[in-house]
Amino acid sequence: QSSVTISGTADMYVGSIKYAGTDRLSKVGSGGMTTSWLGFSGTEDLGNGLKAGFAFGSFIRMDSGSYGRFNGDTTYARDANVSLSGGFGGLKLGRSSSPNFVPSLLVNPFGASFAFSPLIQHMDMTNVPGYVKTAQADTGWSNQVVYSTPKLGGLTVNLHYQFSNLSSPDDNKNNAAISATYFSGPLTLAGFYEQAELTNPNVSARAFKTSDWMIGGAYDFKFVKAFLSYGAADDMAIDGDDAGTLQVGASVPLGAGKLLASYAQTNYDPGASSDLKRKTLSVGYDYPFSKRTDLYTVVMHDRFTGTNSGTSYAVGLRHNF
Amino acid sequence: QSSVTISGTADMYVGSIKYAGTDRLSKVGSGGMTTSWLGFSGTEDLGNGLKAGFAFGSFIRMDSGSYGRFNGDTTYARDANVSLSGGFGGLKLGRSSSPNFVPSLLVNPFGASFAFSPLIQHMDMTNVPGYVKTAQADTGWSNQVVYSTPKLGGLTVNLHYQFSNLSSPDDNKNNAAISATYFSGPLTLAGFYEQAELTNPNVSARAFKTSDWMIGGAYDFKFVKAFLSYGAADDMAIDGDDAGTLQVGASVPLGAGKLLASYAQTNYDPGASSDLKRKTLSVGYDYPFSKRTDLYTVVMHDRFTGTNSGTSYAVGLRHNF
Amino acid sequence: QSSVTISGTADMYVGSIKYAGTDRLSKVGSGGMTTSWLGFSGTEDLGNGLKAGFAFGSFIRMDSGSYGRFNGDTTYARDANVSLSGGFGGLKLGRSSSPNFVPSLLVNPFGASFAFSPLIQHMDMTNVPGYVKTAQADTGWSNQVVYSTPKLGGLTVNLHYQFSNLSSPDDNKNNAAISATYFSGPLTLAGFYEQAELTNPNVSARAFKTSDWMIGGAYDFKFVKAFLSYGAADDMAIDGDDAGTLQVGASVPLGAGKLLASYAQTNYDPGASSDLKRKTLSVGYDYPFSKRTDLYTVVMHDRFTGTNSGTSYAVGLRHNF
Repeated sequence: QSSVTISGTADMYVGSIKYAGTDRLSKVGSGGMTTSWLGFSGTEDLGNGLKAGFAFGSFIRMDSGSYGRFNGDTTYARDANVSLSGGFGGLKLGRSSSPNFVPSLLVNPFGASFAFSPLIQHMDMTNVPGYVKTAQADTGWSNQVVYSTPKLGGLTVNLHYQFSNLSSPDDNKNNAAISATYFSGPLTLAGFYEQAELTNPNVSARAFKTSDWMIGGAYDFKFVKAFLSYGAADDMAIDGDDAGTLQVGASVPLGAGKLLASYAQTNYDPGASSDLKRKTLSVGYDYPFSKRTDLYTVVMHDRFTGTNSGTSYAVGLRHNF
Repeated sequence: QSSVTISGTADMYVGSIKYAGTDRLSKVGSGGMTTSWLGFSGTEDLGNGLKAGFAFGSFIRMDSGSYGRFNGDTTYARDANVSLSGGFGGLKLGRSSSPNFVPSLLVNPFGASFAFSPLIQHMDMTNVPGYVKTAQADTGWSNQVVYSTPKLGGLTVNLHYQFSNLSSPDDNKNNAAISATYFSGPLTLAGFYEQAELTNPNVSARAFKTSDWMIGGAYDFKFVKAFLSYGAADDMAIDGDDAGTLQVGASVPLGAGKLLASYAQTNYDPGASSDLKRKTLSVGYDYPFSKRTDLYTVVMHDRFTGTNSGTSYAVGLRHNF
Repeated sequence: QSSVTISGTADMYVGSIKYAGTDRLSKVGSGGMTTSWLGFSGTEDLGNGLKAGFAFGSFIRMDSGSYGRFNGDTTYARDANVSLSGGFGGLKLGRSSSPNFVPSLLVNPFGASFAFSPLIQHMDMTNVPGYVKTAQADTGWSNQVVYSTPKLGGLTVNLHYQFSNLSSPDDNKNNAAISATYFSGPLTLAGFYEQAELTNPNVSARAFKTSDWMIGGAYDFKFVKAFLSYGAADDMAIDGDDAGTLQVGASVPLGAGKLLASYAQTNYDPGASSDLKRKTLSVGYDYPFSKRTDLYTVVMHDRFTGTNSGTSYAVGLRHNF
């Protein structure tokens, strides 16, 4: 019998949430710092340096106990893949994270916080009326083949291709991308370029192709870890709009925990009319009870041209298993 | 890597089922004694007496292999929560059992049998046409924060609060409750008071507030364990109805197993018209193959004013893992 | 605490697929050789030769990360049952494999490949426009009670009964069947006869009863394992159609792997009009990296009267855990 690893994150917060242009809502929410999930994975050593592996992972909205990130998400939206790796690099088949996801979480101090990371908010979320997320093609891709190079120094390059699995005339539509990460001592660099003709997680053909890219990094000066990223996107909501997002951040050791701060600004050009600006600042404190469990508190201020600004407050508990 | 516990119950019966006012149906059914479920949980010792924990649990209708207790239930309707406990007591965030659930299963000999416990039938089920369940707000609450006191002698008191997580004008609607359990030698006492403005498991605003309470207990005389409970409810189906439920029960060691008997009577006052009475008697025998696996048989007789009565027969196998 | 086994299969392929009468589609697909799944099971020794057991298993479409074999499948469509076994044989209650399933996979060299086994294609799949699958009642039955005899020599006989769990007038509708397997050294024999008044996995009453049977076997001559089966069905799409399916196959050790070949021919008589013939040939090579992980490639040629023929090509990776 093989050995299967069960892992995941249970992350809940209590907060008073107000994004730009929305009403204030007091709530208990799921996934303040990490989207809550439950998964099963394993690897098998095949000899000759080869390894096989699999991963099945589900997101969970712990507030209601619903599967997925939203109604209509696929059950194993986080992971449903089989892989083979060895001296040639790695090959992964199935649903797995999209090119934009890992780079985006490495270059900002709030990581993959879909609730409170300004960068993730601007790239992936649609909370703010009138705002258009820059990474249209989701943080996971279905029908995906990913080839990853072997580690060259600290560099890994990944080639991503998503089949449509749709019948004619959409059978040749695809998503394609390159992403890369580089780790060397205190330095982290990451980036991606992706173009998408398909929606996710439920695949259908977009009316027009969208593309986006980002490059960024982090440097750990010990007294502060500094983060910086810049990215741009074209043809998101309409064929002709574009956007650019600059993000700066810092993580500062303070007491037993860390003070976190990140600011993102996106200039969104909707085509005909003048630029709209989204400006989001989050400041938080993350206190680790252990390597697996932390308590966090965040204040987020969010502005968007033409709407009233919003400030959110939250305190939460994240437990990794 | 952390250690995750997989647990659950697989419980199936074959029976001929007839509730008051319904047609007889021969069937193989799921969850005769315990609603079948599968779950994942774990705890982490954080030092200083602190512990973190999580639980994800799904109900399963094993007859069809469907998730949930009914179509439209949430996937992790049983548990989806993260918790922190220590000298201060315990705090639990997410979906977890509602205030009425644990008290109700402690004070009757059929425990949490949604199929055959007269008390659970009267509180939580809608099998009988025209009958209105007294605990309108489900046995699990979404968007819930539960604070539990440390054990004071054998006493634990729990404060429950459910956020609506709904937008205006329902943002301040809530469910709120207090529940308590007391264990001391042969004596068990349990009770709750809850008021609900929200539905569950899928949360929406009720048209009017409902409230219900129950107090009960059990005493183990060795040759018999006796059970008694009384509870009442207001404003369930309409703003102005009310109900009161008396339940008596006994569990008697007999051979290697236990003879179980429970009778519940509910006087339901629908407002304008005169009282309707539901009277349900279940007698069963539970034979343990082991501490984890038992064989059971139950006869249930069910009457409700204005309908024909029904008698159900079932034999089932329950396996806990 | 009990010990729960996690098991499953992660199987993905990249292929260019064209069934008879369909358009060619290049895709990454789930379940080339085995339908991908994830499951939880366990057994408990009760003493006196008795054992209790349970199984919960979900199919997964790994391309999109969706649960089930298709939209609308039940979540635990593979397994949701509890069982008791001992000297008397075995009794299984809940959702489990149907009478046709295990025999069908034993008598053809592609086993339970719903994508590429000609026999499974003809019995269970509806990819080809106008073709009617012969085993109408699914490869799993809901509401099922299965009694299995003790092993008599290498023989096991199973009696299957499916309750409708439907209200009047469909309360007495049922599916019923007998199946058997026999293993003795190099010889495998298997067969079934089933009649179905109910659909699966979501149970409703069929307009008329259908029946089908199959008998087949395999013999391992070492240099080749030969497979042969014949089966017939009545009243599938309409009350009055019928079909007969002959399948021959071989598995030949070649290098470190096995060459697989299987041919199935079904004569489908739709009633009024003349017979339609489906002829499907698959040839493949299966290379084992280990006992748990294999690489496979398959070419399948598929013809059906009145439509253009199709040839499919695929290469895939299967990992059992």
